[in-house]
Amino acid sequence: MRNDVNRQFRLKTRPTGRIETGNFDFVENPIPEIGAGQALVRVLYLSLDPTNRIWMSDMDQYMPPVEIGAVMRGGGIGRVVKSNSSRYKEGDLVSGLTGWQDYCVADEGENAMGVLPAGLPIPLPTMLGACGMTGLTAYFGLLELGKPQPGETVLVSAAAGAVGSVVGQIAKIKGCRAVGIAGGADKCRHLIEDLGFDAAVDYKRADWRDQLIEATPDGVDVNFENVGGEIMEAVMMRMNLFSRMPLCGMISGYNTGEPMRGDFSPILMRRINVRGFIILDFMEKYAEGTIQLATWVAEGRLKHRETVVEGLENAPVAVNRLFDGGNLGKLVVKVADPV
Amino acid sequence: MRNDVNRQFRLKTRPTGRIETGNFDFVENPIPEIGAGQALVRVLYLSLDPTNRIWMSDMDQYMPPVEIGAVMRGGGIGRVVKSNSSRYKEGDLVSGLTGWQDYCVADEGENAMGVLPAGLPIPLPTMLGACGMTGLTAYFGLLELGKPQPGETVLVSAAAGAVGSVVGQIAKIKGCRAVGIAGGADKCRHLIEDLGFDAAVDYKRADWRDQLIEATPDGVDVNFENVGGEIMEAVMMRMNLFSRMPLCGMISGYNTGEPMRGDFSPILMRRINVRGFIILDFMEKYAEGTIQLATWVAEGRLKHRETVVEGLENAPVAVNRLFDGGNLGKLVVKVADPV
Repeated sequence: MRNDVNRQFRLKTRPTGRIETGNFDFVENPIPEIGAGQALVRVLYLSLDPTNRIWMSDMDQYMPPVEIGAVMRGGGIGRVVKSNSSRYKEGDLVSGLTGWQDYCVADEGENAMGVLPAGLPIPLPTMLGACGMTGLTAYFGLLELGKPQPGETVLVSAAAGAVGSVVGQIAKIKGCRAVGIAGGADKCRHLIEDLGFDAAVDYKRADWRDQLIEATPDGVDVNFENVGGEIMEAVMMRMNLFSRMPLCGMISGYNTGEPMRGDFSPILMRRINVRGFIILDFMEKYAEGTIQLATWVAEGRLKHRETVVEGLENAPVAVNRLFDGGNLGKLVVKVADPV
Repeated sequence: MRNDVNRQFRLKTRPTGRIETGNFDFVENPIPEIGAGQALVRVLYLSLDPTNRIWMSDMDQYMPPVEIGAVMRGGGIGRVVKSNSSRYKEGDLVSGLTGWQDYCVADEGENAMGVLPAGLPIPLPTMLGACGMTGLTAYFGLLELGKPQPGETVLVSAAAGAVGSVVGQIAKIKGCRAVGIAGGADKCRHLIEDLGFDAAVDYKRADWRDQLIEATPDGVDVNFENVGGEIMEAVMMRMNLFSRMPLCGMISGYNTGEPMRGDFSPILMRRINVRGFIILDFMEKYAEGTIQLATWVAEGRLKHRETVVEGLENAPVAVNRLFDGGNLGKLVVKVADPV
């Protein structure tokens, strides 16, 4: 770790299929100078998210794609090391779109970052995970769009992932039956034994469709959809009349370059409400959600796990873990020690 | 027309592809006897609807499929000719599920029918169309689920059909831009010149995708979806952030026997709200909707057209017109003179 240069991953080519280190130039630039109203931020942790893969592509998406030659976009947490803005003071912890680099510049406009409350008893990786954007995605997607009622069945795919693991636990807190789909016996055991899910479906086993039926004897009232593809189609055939389907992601399709098709007829026949969302849609309620999530964490009702990869240089390799099933909980990259 | 037997179409085999007369037995049975709490109804008009095709199949659907050997299910209007129920009196006009037959039995329970207000100045075919289930489907799907705001763009597919033509006209009444997709120059001219749509897209022309873009310069805020398939996918790529998509039908897929697949990624990226529905979901509001539709018809603000096919015996052939594009407005079968 050096503190005299700004290492940056700049997008060189758009990945086709899996993300390769060669899709980026890893360059060293001077630490940026800041102007009036700006602050210099030392990046401490990067958040790795499936949406990184979308941003690398030029598919139809919810923000502009990362331009070729630009610093790779990514969420993160950093510390203010110099400030010309009354919004930030030296030593503040801030979160937002840091990019895949050692230093970023926060301003008071489009590139503003959020200042974290001082003295929170929550570790920084958790502030990117269960108490950060990831947790908020689960919180608002499930509660505002899924509208689960006590006694209903909530199913979530990619359930051992950062978002899915929070979805299932909030479902339990709200008095629902929580069913998770994950890959492998270890993850499924983790869902039930550590996180309190009622049932788990191992999609890597040949009988996953039978498991799904067995795990949802009363059908599915809320399907928090993260993966798309044939798993989504099978789940939709378990969904009840007037059920809800917050569509958070379709990770199974991000690497294929193909349209992410699925059968629409259950939407019609079962009068399902399907609603796509991203967490930015709920920005005005972040404070409420963060406080609730941090409270549940502090009370021990919301368990969380983070996988920390050491070193900015490993981000392009590590992000693939989100797609090949090799990840449990929130995946972060430690860029610098949080001194 | 004979009044001494009850002719019935009974489902013999489930159609594969197009509906054939041979899928039915056309039988003559005695006019049914009625018991306590029942009424005998002479069927006058049958409503032909795309959903008839769904009921003939055994696909996953919102009511039980018609059983082999059972009278074909269908909506209609009839007159009470004998009554043992205080709910119905002789001479009443009633609407409901008459079935494809000359006579049906209405009761006070599961097979109850709705008594039409006496002296309505609306012709009976219109009571099955713009002022009946068809109009109500347009009314509630558009207003309750589509939630169009003045100045927004409402697009409807199968726009020259019974539901679509009402959707576009209600959109205009509500101050929206109305865009219709239909097959052929005549239908498209009808939409604009007779029904007041702002733009029409002729899907039978090779340049329909360009027409669609030209017709929706500000994108699409409400897509009232009737057809599915590649037209639906193209429209979804014109939909705006936070737009709404009431899913009323996917008629392009009913004859294929294949899953009705479409690209889910615009739902995610554009945060579209997709909601399947059938008109039965709004049953408690029928009176409100019927009065509003009848008022608009009486005021000349809601134009309607019916295609009347003479003779019950022609129902199985006529219903195919809904699928091959040969129909304009509401398609009904006249079963008997409404004396």
